[in-house]
Amino acid sequence: MGNRIRGVLAPVITPFNQKGEVDIRRLVTHCHWLRKYGVGLAILGTNSEANSLSLAERLNLMEALFETDIERKAFMPGTGACDLPTAVALTRAATCAGCAGVLTLPPFYYKGVSDEGLYAFYSELIEQVGEESLRVYLYHIPQVAQVNISIGLIERLLKAYPQQIAGIKDSSGDWHYTQTLLNSFKGEQFDVFPGSERFLLAGLREGAAGCISATANINPAAIIELYTHWQTKSAERLQVKLNEVRDIFEQFPMIPALKTTIAHWSQDSQWRAVRPPFLPLQAKDRQSLLNYLSKVGFNIQDVS
Amino acid sequence: MGNRIRGVLAPVITPFNQKGEVDIRRLVTHCHWLRKYGVGLAILGTNSEANSLSLAERLNLMEALFETDIERKAFMPGTGACDLPTAVALTRAATCAGCAGVLTLPPFYYKGVSDEGLYAFYSELIEQVGEESLRVYLYHIPQVAQVNISIGLIERLLKAYPQQIAGIKDSSGDWHYTQTLLNSFKGEQFDVFPGSERFLLAGLREGAAGCISATANINPAAIIELYTHWQTKSAERLQVKLNEVRDIFEQFPMIPALKTTIAHWSQDSQWRAVRPPFLPLQAKDRQSLLNYLSKVGFNIQDVS
Repeated sequence: MGNRIRGVLAPVITPFNQKGEVDIRRLVTHCHWLRKYGVGLAILGTNSEANSLSLAERLNLMEALFETDIERKAFMPGTGACDLPTAVALTRAATCAGCAGVLTLPPFYYKGVSDEGLYAFYSELIEQVGEESLRVYLYHIPQVAQVNISIGLIERLLKAYPQQIAGIKDSSGDWHYTQTLLNSFKGEQFDVFPGSERFLLAGLREGAAGCISATANINPAAIIELYTHWQTKSAERLQVKLNEVRDIFEQFPMIPALKTTIAHWSQDSQWRAVRPPFLPLQAKDRQSLLNYLSKVGFNIQDVS
Repeated sequence: MGNRIRGVLAPVITPFNQKGEVDIRRLVTHCHWLRKYGVGLAILGTNSEANSLSLAERLNLMEALFETDIERKAFMPGTGACDLPTAVALTRAATCAGCAGVLTLPPFYYKGVSDEGLYAFYSELIEQVGEESLRVYLYHIPQVAQVNISIGLIERLLKAYPQQIAGIKDSSGDWHYTQTLLNSFKGEQFDVFPGSERFLLAGLREGAAGCISATANINPAAIIELYTHWQTKSAERLQVKLNEVRDIFEQFPMIPALKTTIAHWSQDSQWRAVRPPFLPLQAKDRQSLLNYLSKVGFNIQDVS
């Protein structure tokens, strides 16, 4: 448990070059910037547009980042897929490289599937990867995947694979479910990461391991500050400040809004590129977003 | 329009061998059996567990079938994916092989995306494949994909790509939507296939091109009979008979039930294998299914 990853992680947004390809140079720069603040790198997540990348692109992206000087233990790549062979290939690549863990969606095409079927998927994944060092973080994001990670499923997986099933990211936005997770697995080696810094303080107070949040891509310093000082008097004030920024981003399509923000402060409009089914924010929305951010005094000084 | 595919197609179920790999031998046998009745081959569809296969497995499956004596114009492979590079690779392979068309899901991971974003996806797909002979059948299956193909999206795509946008499979199970599609595009070169033989007679009467239905995997003769004789006096009776069988299958998880049926009549239990998140039917459910089928006099004499 001591060497398990904790803290604030960003589902790292993925830049594209003018040809629409993954832009490794910009990605490495962004990762270095996040690491300066101590933010962990949940690359290939939902906000990374990972499911808009092919398997080959995802493997190449990981390989390129693993060739940099960034420590492998800072990474928690997304490795979920609808099909097992793809999930196995991604999970094996991340695990063999020495990543802290993997964040793994349930198979999300078919709906209304049984917990037993989901158990079979994760079980096969763990068996086929077959690495002692594998640490799986289950990924509960029902509003997107439309497939739930239930308490019963976690119990069953934990019993069978107490070493490999390391925790969960709860992106439901439902604090009641996060609390249920925290209470149900108290005392077990099962780490709960809320999927938004909105629940960071409340989560830490009830034993959460940190958070994995889209807006850590653009607001890393302030989120890390609360993570570091959550037991101080200023914690409530810091949480309110974080929520102000979070509120703004939740008024826009998240991925284009994050990219607009990085593009603006790095003065690099290529950062605005997204893949279908997303579209870049239109000029009017870009201006609204930046106006709102300016009103709450939001700024990024050193993004490049 | 004259050379467009019409009639009854099956989303061909995918057999797995004891190692869990795609079993080409059994697949070819099943395809030959379906072709005897004149059923078209919508391989790699929802009921084919296509989204439980990797890109490499899907390409290999197509290649193996294209090496057989089955005419290429009988195929309408599923080529949808959440990411464009995968959808492009599958669509190009099917198109260059001379398939009748491709059946293409919208990108289905992200929810609540705009029609403009979906338009961008399909537009990029068509442009990147860049084949004059490409015929795209849009795939509307909102209860699974949770992403809709709207009338407005179709209008826009048809206007931009009148040759390439060939039709739609409507698996909503909502006859009202099927009717809306039939009426909206009457007189245009846009073929509507209901996703169930339950709507075959009503569909044909309003101009549908046929149907693409899971149960065509196990009831091909009777469905083809209605397709051939829909303008005769016996049509209503044939439709009632089809519905009896369809009703039974809708009481079970469809894919395991179809495989159980083929396994039973071919006396080949390996056909029962499915991939997670599905599980084979348990013995009790297998018995119920076969009892129900026996009660309505269902039989397959010649499946091998």
